[in-house]
Amino acid sequence: MRIAKPTLLINEETARRNIRKMAAKAASSGVTLRPHFKTHQSADIGKIFQNEGIEKVTVSSVDMAVYFSRAGWKDITIAFPYNPLEAAEMEGLAHQIQLNVLITSKAALDHLNRNVNAPLGYYIKVDVGTHRTGVDPNDRKALQEVSASGNEHHRLKGLLAHAGHAYKALNQEEALRIFHHSTDLMEKVKKSLERENLLISYGDTPTCTLVETFTGIDEVRPGNFVFYDTMQHSFGVCALEDIAVCLACPVVSVHPDRNEAVVYGGAVHLSKEYILENENKSFGTVVNLRESSWEATSVARVDRLSQEHGIIKGSNHYINSLRPGDLVGILPVHSCLTADLQGYYVSLTGKRFEKLNKVSV
Amino acid sequence: MRIAKPTLLINEETARRNIRKMAAKAASSGVTLRPHFKTHQSADIGKIFQNEGIEKVTVSSVDMAVYFSRAGWKDITIAFPYNPLEAAEMEGLAHQIQLNVLITSKAALDHLNRNVNAPLGYYIKVDVGTHRTGVDPNDRKALQEVSASGNEHHRLKGLLAHAGHAYKALNQEEALRIFHHSTDLMEKVKKSLERENLLISYGDTPTCTLVETFTGIDEVRPGNFVFYDTMQHSFGVCALEDIAVCLACPVVSVHPDRNEAVVYGGAVHLSKEYILENENKSFGTVVNLRESSWEATSVARVDRLSQEHGIIKGSNHYINSLRPGDLVGILPVHSCLTADLQGYYVSLTGKRFEKLNKVSV
Repeated sequence: MRIAKPTLLINEETARRNIRKMAAKAASSGVTLRPHFKTHQSADIGKIFQNEGIEKVTVSSVDMAVYFSRAGWKDITIAFPYNPLEAAEMEGLAHQIQLNVLITSKAALDHLNRNVNAPLGYYIKVDVGTHRTGVDPNDRKALQEVSASGNEHHRLKGLLAHAGHAYKALNQEEALRIFHHSTDLMEKVKKSLERENLLISYGDTPTCTLVETFTGIDEVRPGNFVFYDTMQHSFGVCALEDIAVCLACPVVSVHPDRNEAVVYGGAVHLSKEYILENENKSFGTVVNLRESSWEATSVARVDRLSQEHGIIKGSNHYINSLRPGDLVGILPVHSCLTADLQGYYVSLTGKRFEKLNKVSV
Repeated sequence: MRIAKPTLLINEETARRNIRKMAAKAASSGVTLRPHFKTHQSADIGKIFQNEGIEKVTVSSVDMAVYFSRAGWKDITIAFPYNPLEAAEMEGLAHQIQLNVLITSKAALDHLNRNVNAPLGYYIKVDVGTHRTGVDPNDRKALQEVSASGNEHHRLKGLLAHAGHAYKALNQEEALRIFHHSTDLMEKVKKSLERENLLISYGDTPTCTLVETFTGIDEVRPGNFVFYDTMQHSFGVCALEDIAVCLACPVVSVHPDRNEAVVYGGAVHLSKEYILENENKSFGTVVNLRESSWEATSVARVDRLSQEHGIIKGSNHYINSLRPGDLVGILPVHSCLTADLQGYYVSLTGKRFEKLNKVSV
């Protein structure tokens, strides 16, 4: 295939393997895998999940819910606090598919009850320690308020948590501690509400990857695991071989005097997310591209980014091997943000995978 | 107008005022203003420039050059190192418009000479201290090599520099020192090449805003100045009143116990660019929206971002005034990256401004 500008390659086989692993763990644990599609935002990648038996999905915006419903998905949870300003769009969608929304306050629930007259399910967002949003699990009054529906069309389906703070866990032990602490909290809330049939929904890639069995929950919602990335790799969550996307970038300038080269591939292709590697910022891990794949071995790192430029730093030997017009691969630091910046993906066999773009909804 | 999701508002009047100021300074200095359109990437915003008499523009990719040539622009400089892999696209374009490209090495020039047979101009990129790319101004051999064209269709038009390190200047004095140092270096290179007719092209918003007169150059290429942003404001380059874009975001969750609220508006709308304010990260400055404008007064800051969530931190009084369903304004940290993430802009009178998107080219 001809690649002339920054292009996000997807290794379908790796993505499928990542999905299969997570689906097998969910199945053997007896829980539902409801993957988060915010990572890829692609109907074509959704089909890989469908082929692995996935029927229910998670998204993080009404736009994504509309997009995936058009692609045929019939059971979608918007795992983002209910946005009163999009009530009409959610009502329309709830007439067509099984839509689930997220409630974080009485004010939001009251608005939902008054403004969305269509059958839907809702989850109470429980703050298990990330302190981004959600109801305090110790606030009995708030929990009671958001569990009393008040609209015959709506059904409280369960409790939902995202342990975003697991992204700061530095090892498997700590990640497992966060998982068990979170599920214990949810169980406590469920008991305090005296609702036997409430589902417990839990998600985040680090803990969902690291725990061996899902206990105490009904549903898992990891998203990033389909692609993984160098941030997950730096946490010890995945191997470089598990990363399923790679940005192919043309080399445009080589500067052996400072062991640097410039590629066409910048902040508008990778995002400004970085990790620290021995106190150096890394905006991506450089790998060698082969004819129809890439090598899962770091050969350099992206040291800094401008809007369209990526400056890679490597050994003098490596930098000297590059010529303007060569292509290098860059494994992204945060694959969700890198994927969001693309218009489409290209598979290793040259197929174009469509995705949601910002003008289509 | 109805806003239900994150929407980048543009204040046309402010943008026009910013353009007029820069155009007046260029005119009184006798230099050409060739604004960098990577900031807005919008044919509709391009028209505001056109109405102010601008005829020549700068872009940072071949895609943008194609997009703006389709919008009627006839003289475009791609201020990004020549990408050999897009030679065919550049050749096609060079047959239609006055195209100028950037050469950073003999290898690139040789490729251009062999592969692009169409009339075009090229500039030598001179590294004036940013050390991103460009020829070392003290490397006479390299300068000689890239100034010897070798293809009858191509004309060496001038020397081009971008003082990216001016973004690290902490005051006007330092910015002016960088400007004069850069222009002195370019003049020295011009003399050493013994080419009287070489143009000197210089760009970057901080110094182009801060210097009072452009001396020693022929052309300026600032881009960001049309919008400015809180990073430029933090450098003392602009006032908050000069910022011409603002992301309108729905409030979805309010947490007065920790003086925080959550808005729909995250890393995929603002970018992960941040500045430090008293050692706190700020991913954007929160302002009040009025019926058809916004107030240029900071009322809170964006403390952190997830993919779709923005967590704003403010006074208890301010946070308590918010309700789910309210709209707040966020002045971006880096308007170029925020604009890149949008599918379109909306003016204060409700007009939709189209822009380049990632599937259209």
